[in-house]
Amino acid sequence: MAIFDEELARLKEKILEMGALVENSIKDAIKSLIEKDDKLALEVIQKDHIVNALDVEIDEECIRLIALRQPKAGDLRFITTAMKIITDLERMGDLAANIAERALELNKEPNLKPYVDIPRMRDIAHGMTRDALDAFVNKDKRLAMDVIMRDDEIDDLKHAIVSELLFLMLENPNIICRAMRITFIAQYLERFADHATNIAEMVIFLVEGKMIRHTTIPE
Amino acid sequence: MAIFDEELARLKEKILEMGALVENSIKDAIKSLIEKDDKLALEVIQKDHIVNALDVEIDEECIRLIALRQPKAGDLRFITTAMKIITDLERMGDLAANIAERALELNKEPNLKPYVDIPRMRDIAHGMTRDALDAFVNKDKRLAMDVIMRDDEIDDLKHAIVSELLFLMLENPNIICRAMRITFIAQYLERFADHATNIAEMVIFLVEGKMIRHTTIPE
Repeated sequence: MAIFDEELARLKEKILEMGALVENSIKDAIKSLIEKDDKLALEVIQKDHIVNALDVEIDEECIRLIALRQPKAGDLRFITTAMKIITDLERMGDLAANIAERALELNKEPNLKPYVDIPRMRDIAHGMTRDALDAFVNKDKRLAMDVIMRDDEIDDLKHAIVSELLFLMLENPNIICRAMRITFIAQYLERFADHATNIAEMVIFLVEGKMIRHTTIPE
Repeated sequence: MAIFDEELARLKEKILEMGALVENSIKDAIKSLIEKDDKLALEVIQKDHIVNALDVEIDEECIRLIALRQPKAGDLRFITTAMKIITDLERMGDLAANIAERALELNKEPNLKPYVDIPRMRDIAHGMTRDALDAFVNKDKRLAMDVIMRDDEIDDLKHAIVSELLFLMLENPNIICRAMRITFIAQYLERFADHATNIAEMVIFLVEGKMIRHTTIPE
């Protein structure tokens, strides 16, 4: 069914477009922090409604495709997975806006120290998001597995950031407020990457029909 | 179609069952913290796989219902919403396990002070979850709106907890580690309630066909 194939291709494009917006938001949010750029931070917060609108638009299109085309198992699961993925992307947009809000607060005060691990977290989270979506549209299980592996790096970096900030707070309690805000940013980045990991897990479920998080026995 | 109605009723029951498990997890996780009960904390962590298994089971059932029964618009949207809601519930189960992990760490040390706001957050988050799911199965828009309103109380309590801990840390830097862990627990509870709010928003979208988060202009 040629029309349905075209519709699916357009759906993939729309999801990649939504993904690109979210990827830009996280980049700009961290840039607004590092360069103390309030204008850019406000832009990130204001632009979040575009991501929200795409969430609704794509959701509607998915419902329309299921109702109208009555897709078979594989295509049906692809579309329902798309509906879940855009929910993750929408929340990733919220997290980018949260980072921009903390940046606006932090920009008012002198830096504690140059940001080193935060931009690293951003780079990894950004790459994970792009690859998770590429894995989805190409049903690429290997790439999805690779995204999941990278989540450990994010967790390690977050722990390193929190430990370093704890040390700085112990040395100088006057910086506790600023240090807490940076801790929150590290957590937002961790959650952002968690969503990318969730997307990658859903891709594996889509391709393999089994849940990645069930392949490990609970501790 | 009587069989389909029965299937939908069973789907609702399964979702409420999953919800009840998640509600118990969050209650037990906080109890394990307050009563310094390591055994209970470990139980919460171990039981998370039951919630994960229900996520897969219900997801499969939803796909089966769509493929087999080809439901019309209203029922179709109900089922796709169910698929998103169980994703939220699964992640709420993870957050309860995260709280139990922090409880295991905190239980090794003396309490900073009696927990007052944390159990309040738990009670509100617990009620929000139960009501969001009730709103879903009964398509009760008013109850869903009520859940969304309560999210502000959660945010206020979290801010109160973080502010108080900041004050305690400034007074006595030796407690920074413990205070940070309690801050994380407050954040997990906030995220838990965020998921309940997300579920309530989806219920409103289901009933009204419009996104609640789009009714406010971005700041």
